[in-house]
Amino acid sequence: MSDTPLQVIPLGGLGEIGKNMMAFQYGRDVLIIDAGLMFPENDMLGIDYIIPDFRYLSEQHGLRIRGILITHGHEDHTGAIQHVVSAFPAPIYATPLTAGLIEVKLRQARLLDRVPLNVFRAGDKLDLSPFWIEAFHVCHSIPDCVGFGINTPLGLFVHTGDFKFDPTPVDRRVTDYAKLASFSARGVVALFSDSTNADRRGWTPSESVIDGAFDRVFRAAKGRVIVSTFASLISRVQQVVWVSERYRRKIAIVGTSMAENVRMALKLGYLELPEGLLISPDEARYLPPNQVTFIVTGSQGEPSAVLNRLATNNHNTLSVQAGDTVIISAHPIPGNEETVSRTINRLFQRGAQVIYDPIDSVHVSGHASQEEQKLMLNLVRPRNFVPIHGELRHLKAHRELALQVGIPDERIAVVENGTKLLFYDGGRMEIGERVPGGYVFVDGNSVGDVTSSVIRERETLGRDGVVVLSAVIERRSGRLLCPPEIKAYGFVASATGNALLEGAVQAARRVLEEDNGNAQSKRDQVEDALSKLFYSETHHRPKLFVTVHEV
Amino acid sequence: MSDTPLQVIPLGGLGEIGKNMMAFQYGRDVLIIDAGLMFPENDMLGIDYIIPDFRYLSEQHGLRIRGILITHGHEDHTGAIQHVVSAFPAPIYATPLTAGLIEVKLRQARLLDRVPLNVFRAGDKLDLSPFWIEAFHVCHSIPDCVGFGINTPLGLFVHTGDFKFDPTPVDRRVTDYAKLASFSARGVVALFSDSTNADRRGWTPSESVIDGAFDRVFRAAKGRVIVSTFASLISRVQQVVWVSERYRRKIAIVGTSMAENVRMALKLGYLELPEGLLISPDEARYLPPNQVTFIVTGSQGEPSAVLNRLATNNHNTLSVQAGDTVIISAHPIPGNEETVSRTINRLFQRGAQVIYDPIDSVHVSGHASQEEQKLMLNLVRPRNFVPIHGELRHLKAHRELALQVGIPDERIAVVENGTKLLFYDGGRMEIGERVPGGYVFVDGNSVGDVTSSVIRERETLGRDGVVVLSAVIERRSGRLLCPPEIKAYGFVASATGNALLEGAVQAARRVLEEDNGNAQSKRDQVEDALSKLFYSETHHRPKLFVTVHEV
Repeated sequence: MSDTPLQVIPLGGLGEIGKNMMAFQYGRDVLIIDAGLMFPENDMLGIDYIIPDFRYLSEQHGLRIRGILITHGHEDHTGAIQHVVSAFPAPIYATPLTAGLIEVKLRQARLLDRVPLNVFRAGDKLDLSPFWIEAFHVCHSIPDCVGFGINTPLGLFVHTGDFKFDPTPVDRRVTDYAKLASFSARGVVALFSDSTNADRRGWTPSESVIDGAFDRVFRAAKGRVIVSTFASLISRVQQVVWVSERYRRKIAIVGTSMAENVRMALKLGYLELPEGLLISPDEARYLPPNQVTFIVTGSQGEPSAVLNRLATNNHNTLSVQAGDTVIISAHPIPGNEETVSRTINRLFQRGAQVIYDPIDSVHVSGHASQEEQKLMLNLVRPRNFVPIHGELRHLKAHRELALQVGIPDERIAVVENGTKLLFYDGGRMEIGERVPGGYVFVDGNSVGDVTSSVIRERETLGRDGVVVLSAVIERRSGRLLCPPEIKAYGFVASATGNALLEGAVQAARRVLEEDNGNAQSKRDQVEDALSKLFYSETHHRPKLFVTVHEV
Repeated sequence: MSDTPLQVIPLGGLGEIGKNMMAFQYGRDVLIIDAGLMFPENDMLGIDYIIPDFRYLSEQHGLRIRGILITHGHEDHTGAIQHVVSAFPAPIYATPLTAGLIEVKLRQARLLDRVPLNVFRAGDKLDLSPFWIEAFHVCHSIPDCVGFGINTPLGLFVHTGDFKFDPTPVDRRVTDYAKLASFSARGVVALFSDSTNADRRGWTPSESVIDGAFDRVFRAAKGRVIVSTFASLISRVQQVVWVSERYRRKIAIVGTSMAENVRMALKLGYLELPEGLLISPDEARYLPPNQVTFIVTGSQGEPSAVLNRLATNNHNTLSVQAGDTVIISAHPIPGNEETVSRTINRLFQRGAQVIYDPIDSVHVSGHASQEEQKLMLNLVRPRNFVPIHGELRHLKAHRELALQVGIPDERIAVVENGTKLLFYDGGRMEIGERVPGGYVFVDGNSVGDVTSSVIRERETLGRDGVVVLSAVIERRSGRLLCPPEIKAYGFVASATGNALLEGAVQAARRVLEEDNGNAQSKRDQVEDALSKLFYSETHHRPKLFVTVHEV
C-alpha cells in the first residue's frame, strides 16, 4: 500500500473553493470536512439554495466514510448536512455549539436517528483510522470554531477552517498559536487555509473594537436601540448584552432564528446573561424607549426577516419610530448590497438614526486579512500550500502571500472544485484529474432537477413576460369554432391595457380564417404574426404559447 | 413679485436624490440641471433603464424652461436628455466634451435639430434671465465637469455637480477653489452638494496615485496588458497612454463606446496621444505581447462588453491567454458586484494575472470623501445646506458633516425626490409640499407603461415558471373533444421530464370528464387540481393558464 497517495478533493460550492465540502481519501477510507450550502446569485432565478455536487464520492463503490467533520456552525459549512447524511450515513463530529445547531437541522429533516452525532472539543483527538484528528481552536464570527490537524499514513495535514487571529476575542479564547507551532515542529505536508480576505491588507480588526463603537452609539441614543446582526454571531449578542447592561437597558429578542440561537447558546454556556436582563418583546413595549434594546434578525435585508419588516412598517408587534437608533452589525454578503442599502434608506425614512460600517465600526470581518494569513503560513511552515475558502481571485492573492513568505511556487496548488490533489510519500504533491465537483440547485422539493436551461427559461419569462393564446378550428372546414382567447402576464401590454392584445387577437383571427393549412401550420403562422406584432410595438419578445385545437 | 419664492425640486431617480435632474423655478421661469438615467436594480426584471418622473414640470401650464444645464457627461446626468428635450424643447448648455457626448445621443434619437445645443466653458457666465449662471470647474472622473453658481432674484445658490478636490488631477485642472471662495464672500443662500461618499472618512486619493500602481504593474508585465475602465474616464486613458509610452507599448482600443469616446476626446483636445502610439487591434495582433496595451470596455462585467467576452472566450478577434495581465481600473457600481467578481474569476481561469483594487490602487473614486465635503462647506459657507447626489443614508451622513462645521440643524434640509424647497427673501428656507418626483421605467419602446405590478408578475414567472393547459369540450354533452394539451416553461418539471406533466394531464382529464359544470367551472377546477398537484410534488406554484373551450 506504500504507493497509495492521499487524495484531497475540494467538492462543490458556488465560486468559492473547498468552502462547503472537502474530502480526504486514503484508499477506500474517506474523511469529509464540512457539509455546507451556498445561497444563489441574483440571476439564479427561483433557486432556494445550492449544495455541493458530491457524486464523485457517491459513485465510488465500497468507500468507507469514516466521519463527517464540521469546522463550525455557519450555514455554508453545515447547511447541506441533511443531503450529505442521506447519501452517506457516517458519524458526524462537531463541537458542542456546532452539534447543537446541526441537531436542529437533522431533527427538522427527520434524520436525527440516522447517524451518530458526536461532540468533541477543541484540543480533543479523534481516532478515525487511518486518520487521526487533532482539533484546534480558531477565532471566527461564531463561537466554538475549529481547524483540524489530520494525521494520515502520508503525514500530517492542517485544515484551518474559517479563521482569524483575533488577539482580544469576545470569549477570550484566541486561535491556538501553540498547537499550530507544534504542528510545524512535527512537519506539515500541506496546509489548507482560508483565503476569504486574501485581497485585504493588514490585520482584520479585533471584535473588541466593536465595544467602543457600541459604547459611543448607546451613550448617544435617546430612544430605543435596535441591533441587527447574524443570528449565529453569539459573541456580538454578548457585546450587546454588556453595553445594554452598562446603559441600564433590558434586552428583547425578535426573530425566530435569533431567539433559537440565543436559547441554544445560553443552554450550552456560550452566552453570559445577567439575571432579569432578557425580557419578552411584549414586556419591552411597556418600558420607556431609553430602557430597551432589541436584537433582531435581518441584517442582510432579507424580505421576510425582522429588519426589513421594520423598514417597510410591516411587522406585527414592533415598529420603528423617530428617535430610534438602528445598528446594522454586519456587512452585506456579496450580492446583498442593494437590499441592504434599500433597508437602510427606508429605516432613515421612518425617522431612525441608522449606524452601520463605515459610519462607525459596528462590524468586523470574521476572516483573516493578509498579515494574519502570513502569520498562519509562518506558524505552520508547511511543505505544500493549498489556499481554500475563497473565489479563485482570493486563492490567487493568497498564493502571492505564500510566495512572499518563501513557499516555492511549485509547492503551491491553486485548484478549483473537483480537482484532485495527490500527496505521495516524502511529501510530494501532484495535481490530479478533475472530477465532477460543482454544485447542484435545490429548488422546492427538487435536488438537481433544475438545470441551467430551466434558469435560462426563467430569465426569458422574467425579462419579457408571457402571452398565451388558444383557439379551436373545425378540422374539415378550417372554420373558426372558438375565437382566439388571449392572456398576457409580465408583458408590458399587461399594463398598457388591451389595445395591443386586441390587435393580436385580430391578427390571429385573420391567420386562422384565411390560411388553408392544418392546425400545426396555422399555429406556426399565428405565432409568427404575434411575434412580429409584439416586437414592432414593444421591442419585447414575450414567450408565446399558441394552441390551435382541431375538432 | 417680492413674495415669490425660489423653488428648488430634486426630480426623479432611483434611490439617489437630485442626481438625475433638478429644477430651479422662479415664478414661471425654470432652469433644469442635468437629465440623466439610472440603471435598474437586480430585481427590476426586464427594465432597460429608468428616467426621472418630470411630470410635475410638464403638467404646469405656461412654464418657460430657460435652459437645460448639464454638469458633466456621465449617463446618470445626460442619459435621459432625449426624453427631456422631447417634453421641453429648451436650449441645452454644456461644456465641450459634455456637448460632444450629448450630440451623439441626440443624433441617434433624431432630435439634434429640435433644440439648440450651446457650448460654454468653466468660468463662463450665462444669462438665462431671471437666472444668471457662473459655471466653475470641478474635478471628477470625466474631464470638463462643472458646478454652477446660480444667481437668482432671491440671491446666489451653488450646485457642485459631482465633484472631488483632487490636488493633482491628471489634466492638472484643480477644482476652482478661488471661485468657491468668491461665492462665499458674496453670500450664498444655499449650497447643493454631492453626497455620494459622505460615509467615507478622509480624502479620496488623487488620480495620480494610479500612476504609481500602473507603473508597478506595467514594469512587472511579461505579456500583453489589457486595461478595462469606464469609456468616459478619459483621464484614465491618458494615464494608460503615459505608462504605455514609458514601457514602449503601442495601444489598441477595443469596444465601440471606448473607441468613440477616445475619438471625441482627441478631436476636442482632452487627450494627448504621441504620434504613432495608437494602432488598430488588427495591427496589435502582429506585435510581440510585451509591446501592446489594449484598452477595453466592460469594467462592470456587462455581458456584451469586451471584458466579459474575453473572460468567457467569446470575443471575435481578441482572446486572453496565460501571461496576459488584466487591469480592472474601476470599482463595481452597486449591484454589479457579482458580475464583476465572476468576470475576474474567469479571467484568472484563463491564466491571466488580474489586478484590481484592493490588489493594487488601480482605481480611485470620482467623488469627494468626508474631509473634502467639509472643505467645500467651509469654502462656500452657505446660509442653508442641501445634501444631494446620494441615497438618503448618504444625505444623512452629509448632514452630520455640515453640523460638524457649524451649520445649524434648522438650515439643513435632507429631502427626497419630489420635495419642494422654498427660499424666501432674506435667505429663509422652507420645506414645501411633495410632488411626483420618482422614476419611470423605460422598457423596450415603452416609457412608463411598465408598473410595479408588471414587475411582480415577472418575479412570479422568473421564480416558478409557467404551465399552460388547454382543452375543448362539447357544450351540450360536456364530452371532451380535444384532450388537454400541456406545456411547461421555466418550471422545474421542464427538466424532470414528462411524468409530472403527464400526471397533470390525467388530473385535468378526470375533472373535465367527471365534472358536470360549465366551461368556467371546469376551468376553475382544473386550475385548482393542477395547483395542488404541482405544489405537493415540487413545492412550487408555477403561473397557470388553463383554457377550456366550449364548442
